[in-house]
Amino acid sequence: MAHHLGQALAEKAWCIHQVYSRSPEPGRSLTRITRAPLVSRLEELDVDADLYILAVSDDAIADIVSSLNIAKKLLVHTSGTVPMDVLKKATENCGVIWPLQSFSHKRGVDLGKTPVCIEASNDTSMNAIADFSGKLFGEVYPASSHQRSLIHLAAVVAGNFTNLMYLISEEILKKAEMPVDILYPIIRETALRVTEQPPGDTQTGPAIRKDLKTIERHLELLNDEPEKKEIYGLLSRFIMNYFEDKKQNLNKS
Amino acid sequence: MAHHLGQALAEKAWCIHQVYSRSPEPGRSLTRITRAPLVSRLEELDVDADLYILAVSDDAIADIVSSLNIAKKLLVHTSGTVPMDVLKKATENCGVIWPLQSFSHKRGVDLGKTPVCIEASNDTSMNAIADFSGKLFGEVYPASSHQRSLIHLAAVVAGNFTNLMYLISEEILKKAEMPVDILYPIIRETALRVTEQPPGDTQTGPAIRKDLKTIERHLELLNDEPEKKEIYGLLSRFIMNYFEDKKQNLNKS
Repeated sequence: MAHHLGQALAEKAWCIHQVYSRSPEPGRSLTRITRAPLVSRLEELDVDADLYILAVSDDAIADIVSSLNIAKKLLVHTSGTVPMDVLKKATENCGVIWPLQSFSHKRGVDLGKTPVCIEASNDTSMNAIADFSGKLFGEVYPASSHQRSLIHLAAVVAGNFTNLMYLISEEILKKAEMPVDILYPIIRETALRVTEQPPGDTQTGPAIRKDLKTIERHLELLNDEPEKKEIYGLLSRFIMNYFEDKKQNLNKS
Repeated sequence: MAHHLGQALAEKAWCIHQVYSRSPEPGRSLTRITRAPLVSRLEELDVDADLYILAVSDDAIADIVSSLNIAKKLLVHTSGTVPMDVLKKATENCGVIWPLQSFSHKRGVDLGKTPVCIEASNDTSMNAIADFSGKLFGEVYPASSHQRSLIHLAAVVAGNFTNLMYLISEEILKKAEMPVDILYPIIRETALRVTEQPPGDTQTGPAIRKDLKTIERHLELLNDEPEKKEIYGLLSRFIMNYFEDKKQNLNKS
């Protein structure tokens, strides 16, 4: 996150005053990208910056906040899960800038097309955060800490759990002695289609067809993998119930 | 399926002899696309075609096969789940042509980039089916009926279950009163990344970090939706166990 943010700020030639990092290597990498001097102790931080960005792991936020000495300066974190209020210990002017993207070191990301959720402790902070975010990211969405929790939950389902589905399908393909790329067109089509049609309109497969014979055969194929079998059964039952309820509600209305 | 196949064959100017359809409207649509005459009774089928393609729903295959009278002609179905052998009742020369794609009426599909699994009852049939498939589809993979069952299971997980994840995340976003397109970049990135890096290397989220605090908060957010809560719990436990086992195996070796 710090890496991608530093890169985007450097590309836009924003003045980055200092880089602080708890461990040397990521810190050095960030100074290379941003050409900003590295400080290794929080006490060395200048107190006259316009914005302090805390792009660290969730667990580290509270710790760093309790050691910060930045008076009433504007401080933000970039986490989807941590409430904004933990920052108030350091300054009354605080907020959150949380980009909705799955970042990895190996793949570049266009922050200019990345939506971002923002939150602020007061109007002045909100104006500054909205202005900064609008220049760096794609669409900017104000969201409370509670909304952000729900969006984060949705992101776990759509991102992390989807990746798990890819992982499980890859292992099944290996059992079939087939190459994993045989499923890429389906994966791509499913992901692209959902941006054009609601997923409730495009659900297919044995469960929505109530094709119990196929479901039964699939469960048998998973007999030696009880955990995957349980997942297959639970998700299939969910699909059957969900679309049955939907149909009944349509018939009633 | 019949629709996309008819379109691709017509575009390549393959001679389609006749179109048979059990219901009038899809049949008329197919004759418009292929310019081939429509027959409404199986007895009207010519017996001198090179290939008979049975692109109907899984349930209908056995029924139609028992009414077919095509002597020793080559017959294929296009299903991921139905074993090839059900076709043997109609002819000894038979096989399967199963394209691995999620077809929908609203979105066009490039069959030339679609992988296809093929199977045949004998070498002559295999040659004809491989030749035909190679001209129409992307990569061609010979696969037995058992392999096809496993690939179909993997496709359900990677396609249908993934679409369910999109559906669940969409409902959570609605609860947060946020627009659904806020998650499209994550969905797209996750789907594209899996074609470059194994999903086991790119899993992220609270479960793989063993961030029990966040998992607990997410489960609480789903308190009024016990089915979604159960899915969240099961998938999170799977991720935790899977990567714990993987780590222990790595440590052992």
